Amino acid sequence: MLRAGTFGVMQGPSNWGRWGADDERGAANLLTDEHVLGACAVPQTGRVFNLGIQLKQGAPVAGNRISPVHLMLSDGGDYAALGRDDWGTADDYLFLASGGTSHIDALSHVWSGGKLYNGFSYKDVRSSGASRCGIEKTGGLVTRALLLDISGRPARDGGMTGPEIEAHLGDRGLEARPGDALLFHTGWMSAALSGELEGRSFPVVDTSAGDWIAEHDIALVGADNPAVEATGTRGVLPPLHDVLIRDLGVYIVEMLDLREPVLAGVDQGLLVIAPLLISRGVNSPVNPLLIS
Amino acid sequence: MLRAGTFGVMQGPSNWGRWGADDERGAANLLTDEHVLGACAVPQTGRVFNLGIQLKQGAPVAGNRISPVHLMLSDGGDYAALGRDDWGTADDYLFLASGGTSHIDALSHVWSGGKLYNGFSYKDVRSSGASRCGIEKTGGLVTRALLLDISGRPARDGGMTGPEIEAHLGDRGLEARPGDALLFHTGWMSAALSGELEGRSFPVVDTSAGDWIAEHDIALVGADNPAVEATGTRGVLPPLHDVLIRDLGVYIVEMLDLREPVLAGVDQGLLVIAPLLISRGVNSPVNPLLIS
Amino acid sequence: MLRAGTFGVMQGPSNWGRWGADDERGAANLLTDEHVLGACAVPQTGRVFNLGIQLKQGAPVAGNRISPVHLMLSDGGDYAALGRDDWGTADDYLFLASGGTSHIDALSHVWSGGKLYNGFSYKDVRSSGASRCGIEKTGGLVTRALLLDISGRPARDGGMTGPEIEAHLGDRGLEARPGDALLFHTGWMSAALSGELEGRSFPVVDTSAGDWIAEHDIALVGADNPAVEATGTRGVLPPLHDVLIRDLGVYIVEMLDLREPVLAGVDQGLLVIAPLLISRGVNSPVNPLLIS
Amino acid sequence: MLRAGTFGVMQGPSNWGRWGADDERGAANLLTDEHVLGACAVPQTGRVFNLGIQLKQGAPVAGNRISPVHLMLSDGGDYAALGRDDWGTADDYLFLASGGTSHIDALSHVWSGGKLYNGFSYKDVRSSGASRCGIEKTGGLVTRALLLDISGRPARDGGMTGPEIEAHLGDRGLEARPGDALLFHTGWMSAALSGELEGRSFPVVDTSAGDWIAEHDIALVGADNPAVEATGTRGVLPPLHDVLIRDLGVYIVEMLDLREPVLAGVDQGLLVIAPLLISRGVNSPVNPLLIS
Repeated sequence: MLRAGTFGVMQGPSNWGRWGADDERGAANLLTDEHVLGACAVPQTGRVFNLGIQLKQGAPVAGNRISPVHLMLSDGGDYAALGRDDWGTADDYLFLASGGTSHIDALSHVWSGGKLYNGFSYKDVRSSGASRCGIEKTGGLVTRALLLDISGRPARDGGMTGPEIEAHLGDRGLEARPGDALLFHTGWMSAALSGELEGRSFPVVDTSAGDWIAEHDIALVGADNPAVEATGTRGVLPPLHDVLIRDLGVYIVEMLDLREPVLAGVDQGLLVIAPLLISRGVNSPVNPLLIS
Repeated sequence: MLRAGTFGVMQGPSNWGRWGADDERGAANLLTDEHVLGACAVPQTGRVFNLGIQLKQGAPVAGNRISPVHLMLSDGGDYAALGRDDWGTADDYLFLASGGTSHIDALSHVWSGGKLYNGFSYKDVRSSGASRCGIEKTGGLVTRALLLDISGRPARDGGMTGPEIEAHLGDRGLEARPGDALLFHTGWMSAALSGELEGRSFPVVDTSAGDWIAEHDIALVGADNPAVEATGTRGVLPPLHDVLIRDLGVYIVEMLDLREPVLAGVDQGLLVIAPLLISRGVNSPVNPLLIS
Repeated sequence: MLRAGTFGVMQGPSNWGRWGADDERGAANLLTDEHVLGACAVPQTGRVFNLGIQLKQGAPVAGNRISPVHLMLSDGGDYAALGRDDWGTADDYLFLASGGTSHIDALSHVWSGGKLYNGFSYKDVRSSGASRCGIEKTGGLVTRALLLDISGRPARDGGMTGPEIEAHLGDRGLEARPGDALLFHTGWMSAALSGELEGRSFPVVDTSAGDWIAEHDIALVGADNPAVEATGTRGVLPPLHDVLIRDLGVYIVEMLDLREPVLAGVDQGLLVIAPLLISRGVNSPVNPLLIS
Repeated sequence: MLRAGTFGVMQGPSNWGRWGADDERGAANLLTDEHVLGACAVPQTGRVFNLGIQLKQGAPVAGNRISPVHLMLSDGGDYAALGRDDWGTADDYLFLASGGTSHIDALSHVWSGGKLYNGFSYKDVRSSGASRCGIEKTGGLVTRALLLDISGRPARDGGMTGPEIEAHLGDRGLEARPGDALLFHTGWMSAALSGELEGRSFPVVDTSAGDWIAEHDIALVGADNPAVEATGTRGVLPPLHDVLIRDLGVYIVEMLDLREPVLAGVDQGLLVIAPLLISRGVNSPVNPLLIS
């Protein structure tokens, strides 16, 4: 499935119109009440994993963005200076590039052929934000996640394909169901957090996996790197973004920290992602929770 | 339980030391694996409610803060101006007062008698943030929530007391269990969202309820207003904040939008709160999810 | 000179092409070395007036913007909390809407008929800022300013016309020279700073004054209000902005505090405006200095 | 004059009390009306030099700060997307570390021995900003500047001393007068702007020059680097900052771009610095203008 150069010509599967001509939530529609109830039944241990990274200066950041800036509006120092230790309150401000830290892409994050998911115009995304497919339309996502540790895969073997994903799951007795999330641990974030990114390559998901993802009605794909796929050369839309977000309305979650659940041997769990309801937002920082 | 003027003298129940001298997570410790598993079993319908308000200019805001500012780093307009509709991506920035929108207070948010929860010094909260009891130490919270609609209660009747909370729950066949969350719908947010705050009073929770909350090991108290309790006069720490956060390590979540679950007649559910892991943060904006 | 509805049809005087097809500085070109030397010879008393307003929460703000947010990165309180009074440093951050406080409009701030000043396309102003006519191209402006106190003019008399400006100056023995700045004191800022804006009207400059301004080669027009002219109905470009900035390349400076020089009876002085060199900026906050 | 380890013990000259016990403006008091008039008479050519650097992502930045973030609230792309080219306006936001780009230090920026300039307590500088010696108290500075190009001085020769400054000026027929500014071109900014900082050393001003500066009543010292002096080891207040700002109330301006006036052979001029009147600010970004 070669898409570069032919963006906007739908060559593979599509979910446009599937949930109505006005739908702005895409694969979130797969998270039916029944699916949610099923996902809530997945946890066996009750352990809660935080999949977001810490927001602070110097934290790993996706692309040419700045890391979050955290500033205090009031703090204990103010009271110390005043010699008042009877009581006090602290308050803070946050300035951040939503897409720079652990975040979920809204369906308005990318487009091709002039169209967002479901055929909305890219012109609906302006300085005032996305009047179509904003993250506030998505809201919270509750589903089952399947966690794939592919960090041992040599980068030279190319990206994971659909059949490889299926085999990986099958080996563990797992089967993807409609509405499920796939989370890929590539090792990128481990390296980023320990300052060892330079000169290294990491496994990715192949563009061709889009077909498998469509066929299995996966609702969300997450990874511990800045883009699920190979990001390609500058100035070309990552092709799997095009397939997942634009053609299928499938959500992408990036910059996750998956070390702990991988270390604990977790391969499935209840996944809860609660984007801030940023009006017309094209991303939201999130701290996804995985409950095993 | 009159506390004004005597802050810092522990007059009621306390959880200091209960989870160790170094504990910075307070009542989050009540959310044991077993409790989490129990909470996951609560949902009966699978419906997911977003309890956060939308982040945008002009949104309701707590106190003398600014409402969030959302700005675009790139958008469809840029591509339209360039005459390029082959493909594109949108990206955005967010600037916000963490405590101004729907948020969770970290245990470092308030102190009295010079002490934070568990006896840490308020001097650990400086411009660099809270080196003790920061929100990144708390992480995600998964529990059962009991939702109390008290919007019909006349403000002149004073705040809800512990026995009244117990009666309210009992009338609905509910009983609080250790680790549960209490969510109070007062009607404040409904009024704020429709621009009808002025001149109106809303019910609150009484300071005395702190004893009942301690006795029942409630882990979190939320409300659809800027402070669970009567905020009192400027320059005095809200006394229930002092009891809950500082004495007990109980979490407070404010500025929620509880209209939909109340309208749907929901009185309990699985509550998932996933604070951004803001390093040393004293608050985090959140979009809590309630799954009924 | 009625322009509404016919934007982009140059009906009056124009400076397009006057300083070359590539010029991005407009009337700043009138500030020749000779003109600057002449302006430096204007001061008679050596008194320096700050014409900017204070940047702080709650300050007067132009339009639907937020007032500046000032936050500390480090302060004395931090050292007090640490019990260290040997030495220390304080540092701060600023978040502001450039056009909300005292500011200068770049020539890229407005356009009509698809064209900025000198015929550049409005499409050169994107999320990455203004690649044409950005404020960093303008840089510092040094000129003579003529200060007109029109606060006594009844708003019902309509805006000041060119002949009225000339008469006002003539009465004071002043004559406008090419490159000069005109500063209008309308009383708006006095009222804004004392919280007395509501229900009041203030004098403005008439659109027709654009001809006189062009004829006299005025380089800059400033005022103590959010727009030099009547701002008109929402959704229509202020017509004098169109004439001055777009047709003539004349600079507009807004939200000034002119109370002190007016009180001191100053009617001319050396005016120095030093925009921050915000790369591709369409505005810059400024604190213009008037030296009498 | 060794100060490290003995901060707060006034060992050299002092201006405390010189302009009254309540004075918060320090050496700005030297800029009398007469001095201002004298400075206005300095320019001989009328050429205006912008001494600020451009504010943009990737710009040189002082210390561990972020470079300015410039974001658009509206731009031409929005109108292009709407297919409206009749007229439009552009607007922008700025987020910056005031002390990271070209800036002036307020007198509240540093302290030692628990005292700011003139004996005010460092505890007056809290999260709400500096209630004493804020930059809004300083306001605009108009003076004569002497520009010293010391970029040819080998770093191994140590910092410039007072007698060397005097000799340097004398060689050019210049003599410092009370209220004058000294601007030092070290070459640091040239190297920073061309990405050639690494591994290089640059000349600085010696701490001992503080005596000479005091004796000659210099009002302001500027440089094209992050600190006029050798910044020393982390965790020690730069000693010349201590002498100039705290003991003498002399202003420091940093991160200047002095390349153009140096190239033009300018050695004196009218210097105008117009800080934004940031209420309680401890720094302000500035674009100082030098008129030769």
